[in-house]
This record gives sequence, structure tokens and C-alpha cells, in this order.
Amino acid sequence: MLKLEVGLGDRSYPIHVGRGILGNPELYTSVLRSRQILVVSNPTIAALWLAPLKNALAEWAPQTLLISDGEEHKNLTTLESILTRLLELRFDRNCTLVALGGGVVGDITGFAAAVYQRGVQFIQIPTTLLAQVDSSVGGKTAVNHPLGKNMIGAFHQPRAVIADLATLGTLPEREFAAGLAEVIKYGLIRDAHFFEWLEANMARLRARDPEALTHAVARSCRVKSEVVAIDELESGLREILNLGHTFGHAIETGTGYGTWLHGEAVAVGMSLAADLSCRLGRIDSYLCGRIDRLIRAAGLPVDLPQDLDPAHMLDLMRVDKKTRDGRVRLVLLERLGAAHVTADYPPGALDATLARAPDATA
Amino acid sequence: MLKLEVGLGDRSYPIHVGRGILGNPELYTSVLRSRQILVVSNPTIAALWLAPLKNALAEWAPQTLLISDGEEHKNLTTLESILTRLLELRFDRNCTLVALGGGVVGDITGFAAAVYQRGVQFIQIPTTLLAQVDSSVGGKTAVNHPLGKNMIGAFHQPRAVIADLATLGTLPEREFAAGLAEVIKYGLIRDAHFFEWLEANMARLRARDPEALTHAVARSCRVKSEVVAIDELESGLREILNLGHTFGHAIETGTGYGTWLHGEAVAVGMSLAADLSCRLGRIDSYLCGRIDRLIRAAGLPVDLPQDLDPAHMLDLMRVDKKTRDGRVRLVLLERLGAAHVTADYPPGALDATLARAPDATA
Repeated sequence: MLKLEVGLGDRSYPIHVGRGILGNPELYTSVLRSRQILVVSNPTIAALWLAPLKNALAEWAPQTLLISDGEEHKNLTTLESILTRLLELRFDRNCTLVALGGGVVGDITGFAAAVYQRGVQFIQIPTTLLAQVDSSVGGKTAVNHPLGKNMIGAFHQPRAVIADLATLGTLPEREFAAGLAEVIKYGLIRDAHFFEWLEANMARLRARDPEALTHAVARSCRVKSEVVAIDELESGLREILNLGHTFGHAIETGTGYGTWLHGEAVAVGMSLAADLSCRLGRIDSYLCGRIDRLIRAAGLPVDLPQDLDPAHMLDLMRVDKKTRDGRVRLVLLERLGAAHVTADYPPGALDATLARAPDATA
Repeated sequence: MLKLEVGLGDRSYPIHVGRGILGNPELYTSVLRSRQILVVSNPTIAALWLAPLKNALAEWAPQTLLISDGEEHKNLTTLESILTRLLELRFDRNCTLVALGGGVVGDITGFAAAVYQRGVQFIQIPTTLLAQVDSSVGGKTAVNHPLGKNMIGAFHQPRAVIADLATLGTLPEREFAAGLAEVIKYGLIRDAHFFEWLEANMARLRARDPEALTHAVARSCRVKSEVVAIDELESGLREILNLGHTFGHAIETGTGYGTWLHGEAVAVGMSLAADLSCRLGRIDSYLCGRIDRLIRAAGLPVDLPQDLDPAHMLDLMRVDKKTRDGRVRLVLLERLGAAHVTADYPPGALDATLARAPDATA
């Protein structure tokens, strides 16, 4: 088992990465403050992993709430159902919420913890690759609004993240691939060596080779936690974590939540961000080609959905949280392993990127 | 015009106290970051004060949203309506919410600012005595849940508080009196001289004498901001600000939101807290009598509603946020001007306080 630390002063917390670790009581003992524990999960994950978790927490007699899976349920209605349960249980400010599941469970449980009685603690047990390498680390919590994804939320750090690689064994192929999008992202924005390692090891990763998986998850969590420790509230550096996300969120909104997986939309978004970076002369077309090849090698798309025209995409991108005074700010690549945020580019270049022809080699 | 400062490091902000100041553009200029401004108010207050505010903000072209007044509308549904408007307006993270109204408008607008895109800035313009001396200062924001008041919320500090005493001129007598409950509280918990000043000046205050009003609002804000600066997130000292509130919230919940005003419920709660402090030998019955006399002189009640029996009260108190592991923590008086929080008292003493006979002299 590996242990990383997210350094945030009195809000610091450990990320445990390993196989079969969610059943280890020791990972919880130092965090829990009372017998008031609510585990939030979804039916699919609960059927597989709730028993070992409840076993580990047996002496604390945890309560359980299952919520429906899918982005379309990550909304204020589901949030309210969690808060209602907490109140029915008479849980006080010393209670602990445990999120057992993917990004939907983690984001909404974290947000419930952020606003219940103005803030209680929570533990993340991410069970998808995407959640393990991205959403469970960094304290971003949120629910969706019909007019925009993750538009309602808070920064609220977990007390611990337990990334159990055993949970990835049952993850459907498509969801696993979606998680790889964020893994590739970390190489692109901050770790050229990791990108090259991914180019060499993508086949092993997709075969879920334990050693490759441990390396990929731990390295991704390390990059993310370094960036978060420098800029917890996303006033600067942290924005680079959104590489591909402004495009991606627009794709998710435009196609309706749940049609495209987040990681699939981000994969296309990274390809588009690379394309725009290339048009602006920041990176060369050879690197663009490598990026697209790695994305495709991960089993992910690089082209916009055919029914989403460029004008609609641009419109959807304008509502993104990274917009400042109406200008669309984007994360662009400076070189392999370095990115920055800017709204300073010719609008025509973005239009050209959005209108580019589908990749014939895909 | 007086200016106090709430000292919270990079979240510090000024409280401006004065007559006719909400129309002063200078108070806004240094705070606003973009032309994206949404003023949230209610129809009653908007009819009186929206025009001068919009005039002061004219060059920023503010948007307006009116919400229904009353605690029963301080809920997730109204919150969502504010968030929907912000998204329809395409407001980004640089936008500013302005709360023009009493505690309901302030609490819900502040919470909307706390969660919109994970946090945007807001300005409080409290128009009731209660909001000026209490809810607008300190960053507590919240909405109600059917199972408990203020159970969903966040700590989110405003960028400025503008307490315009002119707005109190139109405040109904009953609401003005309700605000005096919190004013009395500041004397009780931290400022014996102020308590004595209130004993000598209650008649002037109730006549809304400008000089007396300025002194009472400024002194109240100073006590509150001192306490908040020491303990922003209510992990210790700040809890003393809840004197009478655990009793009070139970009264509000038990009678249904909106039947009793918050300040009226707190007034009874302070009288009960004093009674319990007396039973425990912490203060003498003479001081108890002075407290009840001052509360009544402010036009406020000291007795529980007749249809709320002690067992039900106790049950309702257990859901309070100050509960820890099921024990009801209460703010008790040590002497005039000093209070502390404890759950260490014989349950029988609390039972006796809840069952005490109505004050025959009331």
C-alpha cells in the first residue's frame, strides 16, 4: 500500500493506494469522531463492496444510503435526500459521511458534507479509475444544474481518500477507458516522463496489470495533489487541471448528461485543446499526433459528436465556470508537460478548431 | 458614518453603519469586480429601497431578483431559483450578489453566493435590526430544512456589510423588538456595560432615537465581529453567540416556521438559559429578574408557547447543530457579560427549566 499526502495545512489528508485496502479498519480509526457514520453508495457498487466496508466499520455501526447512479441524478433533489436522511438520523456536526462509489457518489456526498450543518467531515472511497485519479482528490464537490454541469458546489476537502485498486477489477471497459483520459491529462499538463511512460505502457494499463495500475493511479494522484496544494481554491495554477474540460463540459451538456461519459468528453476536449495550441504555434503538429494516438490507444474518441455544430459548442462553452466577463478562458499546452490558462487568442482559431474535420485515421 | 472592520485575514471586510448610506456609490466601488451584479430582495423592501440602491449602482447596471419573504421560503427551492437566474444571466465567478433585505434574504443570498460555481462574492445590505446586528455579520449562511432550521448552509464571508439605519424607520414594531433580542444578547454574553446601557436606554431605543440606535447597532456589530474574528468556524468561543438559540430554534420548529419571529423565540430562549444558569448556581435570581425585565421592556416574551410541552421541546432541541453525540449543549451564563457552552449539567435541571410556570408578572 502506498500513502501520499495532500499538503493543505490543517486540512491535509492522506491518499491510500493499494489492493484490497477498503476493508482495513486502521484507515478509518484515526478519522472517525463518533458513531454517526453514513455510507453513501449506489446499488451496483454496494452489491460488490459494501459488505467488506461495513465489516471494517463494524464497531462503528454505520448507516447506509443508496442513491441512483448517473450524472442525471447528481442534482439538488438527490442532495436533499442525503440531507434528509442525516436529519432523520439526528446526526450532528461530529458525524462522518463516507462516499463509496464513482464521481457521482463522491461529488454529491462531498457536497452534502460541505453544507450539512455548514460542514461535516467525509471520507472518499473512489471505485472508478476516474474518481481515483481525479474527482476524489482536491476537495471539489458539486451537483449539476439543468443549465450547467457542476454549477452548484463547494470546496470541501475529505479527511482521507482510500483508492482500492481491487474495485477497478469489475469496472466496465468503457468506464475504465474514460478514467484514462484524466491519467493522460496529468502527463500532458505537468509530467512529460509520465506521458512517455503511458505511451509505452498503455496496453498493460488497459489489461489492468496491477503494477502498471498502481503506478498510474499513484502518479496521477501525486500530480493532482501537488497542484491542489499550491492552489486549493483554483485562483491560478489549479486551472490547468481543466485541460480539455471546457470543451468536455460543453459536449456533456450539448449531448445531455449521461450520453457521453465525462472522460470521453474530456478526451475530445484534450485533442481540441492540443489542436488549438498547435494552431497558435505553441506546440507542433507532431506532438498533436502523439497526443491523438495516445488518446485513441486508450480507447477514447478525439472527434466532436457529429450532431453538435461548432456554433452550439461555442455557446455552451461560454457558460463554463472558467469564463471571465464573457471571454472563454481555455487551458492550452505550452509544450509536453506544461500548460497555462488564457483567453488571449484569436476567436477565429477557436472557430477553426471546433470546425476541424473528423480524424480520418480514427 | 461609522466603519468597523471584521478581522479575518484575507477575508476581512468592513461594516458601515450610518443613516442613508446605501445610496453611496463609494461603498461599492472597491468591492465590485465586474458588471455582473444580481441584487436579491423581497417585494416589500424593494418597493422602499431598491430605487436608491440601483441609483448608486447605476453605472454597473445591476440585475434584480425578488424572492418571497418569510422563513418558510428560506429553502432549497428558493435557493435554486437564485442559482437558475445566475445561470440564465450567464454570470461567472467574478459576479457579485447583493442581499438587500432582512435575515431571510441575507442568509439565502449568502448561501447562493457560497455555492454558485463553488463560491462568488456578496455584499450584505441588512434592512432589519435583527439582520444588522446579527445575521449579516459573521459569514453564516443557510437555508432551512423541514426537519430543522438553518440545517443546510456554509460559512461564507461577505465582502462588505452596509447597515443603513434609515431602513429601520419603516420596520414594523414587532420586527424591531425581535431585533432587540440579539442586541440584549451581546450585553449578556460579553459586555456588561452595554447591558446596563440597554437597561437605561431601552425606551429611547424603542422610540428609534437615532443616536441610541447608532450606538446599539455599532456596539452589537463590534461584539459580534470580535467573537467571529477569534473563532470564524464556530469551533469554540463563537458558540456563545447562540445564547438562547437552542431553545429558540426548537420553539420556531415546534410552532412552525413563521409563527414566532426568530428574535421572539431567542428572547424566550435567553430567559430559559438564564433560568437554567440560576438553577445551576452560576448566576443569582436577582440577575435573572433583571434579564427578564429587560427582555420584557424590549417588548419581547419570556415564556414558552403554551401548546409546546416540555417533552416535545427537549426532543426538538436534540436535533440542534450544537448537539454533540446526542447530548444537548447549551450556552449558559457565568455572570453578566460572560457565557460558556456546556453539556455538563443534570438533565433534571433542564427539565425543571422547561417546565417552569409562566411569569405571572408578564
